[in-house]
Amino acid sequence: MKQLKPNKTNNPYQEQEHIKYMKRAIRLSKKGLGHVSPNPLVGAVIVKQGRIIGEGYHAKLGGNHAEINALNSCKENPKDATMYVTLEPCTHYGRTPPCVDAIIENGIKQVIIGFIDPNPLVSGKGVEKLRNNGISVICGVCQDEIKELNKIFIKYITSKKPYCILKTAMTIDGKTASVTGKSKWISCKKSREYVHRIRHEVKGIMVGIGTVITDNPLLTTRLPNDRGINPIRIVVDTKCRISLDANVITGKGKTIIATTVDAPKEKVKNLEKKGIGVLIINKKNNMVDIKQLIGILGEMEIDSILLEGGSSLNFSCLEAGIVDEVITFIAPKIIGGNNAKTSIGGIGIPLIKDAHMLEDMNIKKIDEDIMIRAKVKPKP
Amino acid sequence: MKQLKPNKTNNPYQEQEHIKYMKRAIRLSKKGLGHVSPNPLVGAVIVKQGRIIGEGYHAKLGGNHAEINALNSCKENPKDATMYVTLEPCTHYGRTPPCVDAIIENGIKQVIIGFIDPNPLVSGKGVEKLRNNGISVICGVCQDEIKELNKIFIKYITSKKPYCILKTAMTIDGKTASVTGKSKWISCKKSREYVHRIRHEVKGIMVGIGTVITDNPLLTTRLPNDRGINPIRIVVDTKCRISLDANVITGKGKTIIATTVDAPKEKVKNLEKKGIGVLIINKKNNMVDIKQLIGILGEMEIDSILLEGGSSLNFSCLEAGIVDEVITFIAPKIIGGNNAKTSIGGIGIPLIKDAHMLEDMNIKKIDEDIMIRAKVKPKP
Repeated sequence: MKQLKPNKTNNPYQEQEHIKYMKRAIRLSKKGLGHVSPNPLVGAVIVKQGRIIGEGYHAKLGGNHAEINALNSCKENPKDATMYVTLEPCTHYGRTPPCVDAIIENGIKQVIIGFIDPNPLVSGKGVEKLRNNGISVICGVCQDEIKELNKIFIKYITSKKPYCILKTAMTIDGKTASVTGKSKWISCKKSREYVHRIRHEVKGIMVGIGTVITDNPLLTTRLPNDRGINPIRIVVDTKCRISLDANVITGKGKTIIATTVDAPKEKVKNLEKKGIGVLIINKKNNMVDIKQLIGILGEMEIDSILLEGGSSLNFSCLEAGIVDEVITFIAPKIIGGNNAKTSIGGIGIPLIKDAHMLEDMNIKKIDEDIMIRAKVKPKP
Repeated sequence: MKQLKPNKTNNPYQEQEHIKYMKRAIRLSKKGLGHVSPNPLVGAVIVKQGRIIGEGYHAKLGGNHAEINALNSCKENPKDATMYVTLEPCTHYGRTPPCVDAIIENGIKQVIIGFIDPNPLVSGKGVEKLRNNGISVICGVCQDEIKELNKIFIKYITSKKPYCILKTAMTIDGKTASVTGKSKWISCKKSREYVHRIRHEVKGIMVGIGTVITDNPLLTTRLPNDRGINPIRIVVDTKCRISLDANVITGKGKTIIATTVDAPKEKVKNLEKKGIGVLIINKKNNMVDIKQLIGILGEMEIDSILLEGGSSLNFSCLEAGIVDEVITFIAPKIIGGNNAKTSIGGIGIPLIKDAHMLEDMNIKKIDEDIMIRAKVKPKP
């Protein structure tokens, strides 16, 4: 991804103004959440002589871009106005005509951009065309906030692979279940609701066959008023051991079984008859090759996955380098037990210096629990 | 412990004043840290016509109480002044004469008290005597802060048992060591320094024999400029397996071995010859009876213990109900491993509903780590 350096103004008063209007554009952009994927969230605000004269956001896939909606909403002539837009305006004919042309035609004098388009095919071209047409451009205002908001879009557009979030819930002594395998409930109600909100925001949810056999989960999005969108369920199941009666097979919503040549052919047929997608993936260390699987899921336009374990799959995914973010709920409980399960299992990493490292730790209290969200540092 | 209800003023301006001066008394009281144990930390401020005319704190064991130091420091006559004192003034002849008498003799008009003396033998008597002598008394100002500061004193004076802090350090996936047993270093340098500051503040440090055999730790306080006080080392060692060459035996500082009748008599003699204290404790579930041990350590005037594991001893201590506080360092690292150690081991608790619960969670970032301090809820 081409990274244009943020070039900010040297005038602190003006910088405050820029941040104020960009924050408004960010707030507007969030209204598209859940409706524009795989497009980014974009908001735009048009300001003339210290007043907002128009604003808009990208509201639905295939609909107008934020810039066009903002221009269309103007109550007076936007000539010589300043446009604040969270993402670099496009120069290409996609689902809609290029925004840059509309900005030029409307006589906008200055464009303040949050974040340069990460799409390697077009990155920087919008800024270039605006400047070539005598429009003053400032980039990088509130860039970090906008990047975080569009992390799924950025990952997917730059790699064609889904943004993967590994979620775990544990006691403060690191257990995800008691010695007898009980895990209801480690985390509090609010934390579990939070997980359903994440399910609503991702395209796929992935678990190992062990979790399906032990817990027989639904893996649906359960939000108040039934307004949750169910992610596509992906079950990693090397030998295709899944029961045809499992909730993920019989329940509402789409399911994909990722298996290998070890799967009995008859079983695969029966699953397909039930409308279940079956992917035959290469084997690596006698298990589904996670890296290959993730590549294929990306090609299927699954841009984001919530990884809900169990501990073996979690470890495999981390070792495969496909995990972007980790969300850990920590409950104020201690259950002990040498043989109780932990969140990340597998054969483990022998030396601490080779550990997977997290960064950008974000800590939040959720009722009695603590939630830690952090990014996985890419291993060198 | 007798709990007098805090009776505060109804005047919000006056309440702000009370808090302001009590906070100053608290700050003064902290100067006694490390020098007054097993006495509480106490600070006192004398205010007349809106000005501080004297202040003092309990500076060393056997020395003057805070009230006396404050009265002695007065630059003008304290008659009709208000005294702020963090703890209820004493009425008894201890190491020094009763403070209440001095307050009455000096004509103090009003006494604002942070926290009623938790000592069941004297609790509330100071307030009573002051009121009987026509002095106005308000109790409970900044009470929670003062209680936290004097938690060791309160636990010990009310139960004759040490205040126990269980400390663990783990990766965000709950591991205290890798599958190969490596634990250097899970937590960051600053976190480890913090642990040495806690060691400095407690009377005893307790570990299981497993930890001594595996890590051969020194268990000393290592602070900059060698100013750390070493806690008494207590090794829980049911069969007295400790090596006479272990660092805790040969190193500087006192060591106590808590063992049982399973200890070879010859070994006990050899340890005692080296100046090591040996306690023969009853067996419970074939191990040292932790409850009995803690009672005996309390009788030995050990008012506080830092519990540094390992996982079996940690579980036994929790199950024995002797742990007051848990400090958990969480490092932004993932090492995985089904067979990697966790902080609390043992046989574990079968059902989540029977977990040990924590409360008053206090979260702090320490460099890259997260530290969680919390109190253990007493089990019903």
